[in-house]
Amino acid sequence: MENTLCFSTNYDSALIDRIQEETKSVGYYNLPNQDTHYIDDYLERLDKQQGLELLTDIVVIGIGGSSLGTKAIYHFLKPVRQLQRKLHFIDSTDPIALNNLQRDVNFASKSTHFLIISKSGSTIETIAAYKYILGLINGSSVDYCPFTFITDKNSPLEKHAKEVGALVVNIQDNVGGRFSVLSSVGTIPLILAGIWVDRVLQGANSIKNSFFDNGYIQDVLLQKATFYAKNVANYPINSVFSYTESLRYFNQWYVQLWGESLGKKQRNSVFNIGLTPVGLTGPKDQHSFLQLIIDGTRDKTITFIKLENFEVSSPVPNITLKHLEDTDIINNVEFSTLINLQADSIIESLKKVQRIPLDEINIKQQDEFSIGQLIYYYELLTSLVGDLLNINTYDQPGVESGKQILMEKLKEIKDKQ
Amino acid sequence: MENTLCFSTNYDSALIDRIQEETKSVGYYNLPNQDTHYIDDYLERLDKQQGLELLTDIVVIGIGGSSLGTKAIYHFLKPVRQLQRKLHFIDSTDPIALNNLQRDVNFASKSTHFLIISKSGSTIETIAAYKYILGLINGSSVDYCPFTFITDKNSPLEKHAKEVGALVVNIQDNVGGRFSVLSSVGTIPLILAGIWVDRVLQGANSIKNSFFDNGYIQDVLLQKATFYAKNVANYPINSVFSYTESLRYFNQWYVQLWGESLGKKQRNSVFNIGLTPVGLTGPKDQHSFLQLIIDGTRDKTITFIKLENFEVSSPVPNITLKHLEDTDIINNVEFSTLINLQADSIIESLKKVQRIPLDEINIKQQDEFSIGQLIYYYELLTSLVGDLLNINTYDQPGVESGKQILMEKLKEIKDKQ
Repeated sequence: MENTLCFSTNYDSALIDRIQEETKSVGYYNLPNQDTHYIDDYLERLDKQQGLELLTDIVVIGIGGSSLGTKAIYHFLKPVRQLQRKLHFIDSTDPIALNNLQRDVNFASKSTHFLIISKSGSTIETIAAYKYILGLINGSSVDYCPFTFITDKNSPLEKHAKEVGALVVNIQDNVGGRFSVLSSVGTIPLILAGIWVDRVLQGANSIKNSFFDNGYIQDVLLQKATFYAKNVANYPINSVFSYTESLRYFNQWYVQLWGESLGKKQRNSVFNIGLTPVGLTGPKDQHSFLQLIIDGTRDKTITFIKLENFEVSSPVPNITLKHLEDTDIINNVEFSTLINLQADSIIESLKKVQRIPLDEINIKQQDEFSIGQLIYYYELLTSLVGDLLNINTYDQPGVESGKQILMEKLKEIKDKQ
Repeated sequence: MENTLCFSTNYDSALIDRIQEETKSVGYYNLPNQDTHYIDDYLERLDKQQGLELLTDIVVIGIGGSSLGTKAIYHFLKPVRQLQRKLHFIDSTDPIALNNLQRDVNFASKSTHFLIISKSGSTIETIAAYKYILGLINGSSVDYCPFTFITDKNSPLEKHAKEVGALVVNIQDNVGGRFSVLSSVGTIPLILAGIWVDRVLQGANSIKNSFFDNGYIQDVLLQKATFYAKNVANYPINSVFSYTESLRYFNQWYVQLWGESLGKKQRNSVFNIGLTPVGLTGPKDQHSFLQLIIDGTRDKTITFIKLENFEVSSPVPNITLKHLEDTDIINNVEFSTLINLQADSIIESLKKVQRIPLDEINIKQQDEFSIGQLIYYYELLTSLVGDLLNINTYDQPGVESGKQILMEKLKEIKDKQ
């Protein structure tokens, strides 16, 4: 992975000491070199409980941090891997989305297993979907428990799981939802899909080492984070422009990580502060968002992510079209070359425009190692910017009020019944 | 459709006269009451050319405005309609996306027809994809032309189409790409899918009449547009928070419409100005973007879109979970009620926060009429804001430079060969 910045900034190297200090209490930092025995152990237990041989479909029930990271990795690799099992995601209370799942998956069959993922078990969407599935299964005679619960140690959800004889995998200590993709929240569904989880972790670890051992990534990340934090008022919007369709769920993961971590009240202050993430896919969004970037208000930084080597490609056929002879210029050009030329052309055109801070990330392959790198890179960047903005990067106090109001509304309905 | 604003603004009613004037030269305004005979005529021609009976798959090749609107309507209605034919979209040069299509569609078969959509025919992604498909078909013996071209009158693409004996449908006059969903760009693929296009147009027309005949929508739109334009510096980000998965492609359509129309250099001025669109889906994005809205910088307006009546729903089963007895509160609540209660709770919690301008759009049904309303409502809103910002809402000069650089890069490659 390479990351070229088109800006430079001085930074305070004490920042790295503060992040070093944070690694003692914030769990995600240590996930790249986690002990992975629990994964093999889990597969053995699942094999005993339900059997692995007939298993073809895994339904992941989790919302926000409990599914976005897994989706990002799964959809990045799916087009280029012969995966062992299909993942399905339930991350909504939309009745139509729930109904659609019934078309795709055989609920009461040894071919399907359900992963219920929630740190505490209080996530209303996840429990509602769990009850929905229980309702569908209850009628049929299943002689095994088709559920695994991925949850915090000693959570009510763990207690429930033990009560019903389901499998449990604990989330590693002190890992927040949006930083949890490399914990059991992500490793368990990904290993079931047949993704080489060890390589994902190795990719993450390569960034971790480069950052903490004074490597190439350290300088890049410190400069970039400092620039973003210093310019929070001038450039409050940070766009990621990914030039491959297979990163579109990575973009969604980034939006949660960035938005929920960095939109906060400042410590010891009355100020609301925040950086707004935008996820874009190239070349499609050249025909959607690019005009705004180029001619609109200068309030955005842009990070281009390019894939150097596409595993699948073919040339544009050498066909001349009558009245469209000008387009012969793309004949024989590989589609993989074309998409990267498009990215390069937009980067070059943006460099000619004043006051649009750019950087460019190049990932080598569409493989486990590269996506592990990219994920850990963004987690570190988020932590660094959060520190510099003087906020708590890891909480989300703003969303509580809506949850309480929902509870009151539900109580009102119950009381009327 | 109802639209409740949580703010009020004085507006200049001369604005409506300026928009009246614009209807003479800007084509999209008149699409709701277009003459639709060309649609029936086209179906007859296609039936003669390739046959409609065996036709099951329509591949739409178009990028940006040539596909986003069709996608929005198609995906809104697909979950609740038994559609006649499946639409597939090619809107990328990503080799992986192109490769995947071959799995889903039989290219050289009477079951598949291709719609090539481009105003001029110079869109590089669209022509590359067309050549790609020609390359795949050329080997096989197809005794009919499986292509329809939807393009401007007398464009090079129309000339090409006539040369190869393909069907042509012209785009109505003076309709720009991102305002073209109600033109032949959208009506042709949608009618082939089996969507009741007349009802989409009637929905749009109901908004048109209400706006131009001094109805309910006129006051709402003038207030809202004036508020957005006046506050372009305070609230440069406009989020749409749709509480149904089936509006997720509508969100993408909105992002293009808003971003590309309103990100411009001001007329007779050196200022870059713009409003940044963000598309959110509830309840999922409560677990992603909501924290930033509530505690982050006060730079966003939020529009909630709620669907009053879900066609499909079921209650949360009446199941008590050991150790999770608190969640009994959702038992027997319809999922459709739950998702709307979630939206209401977030709206209520946001109303308690200072300086977050909100509004709420309620659409009645998941049907053609409602999506037609929503689309025309947003097109009008965009035109109004563009007028007030003193920009040209309908061009996109910023994207030209990147296209030219791409041409130069391609020429370099050719010269080396």
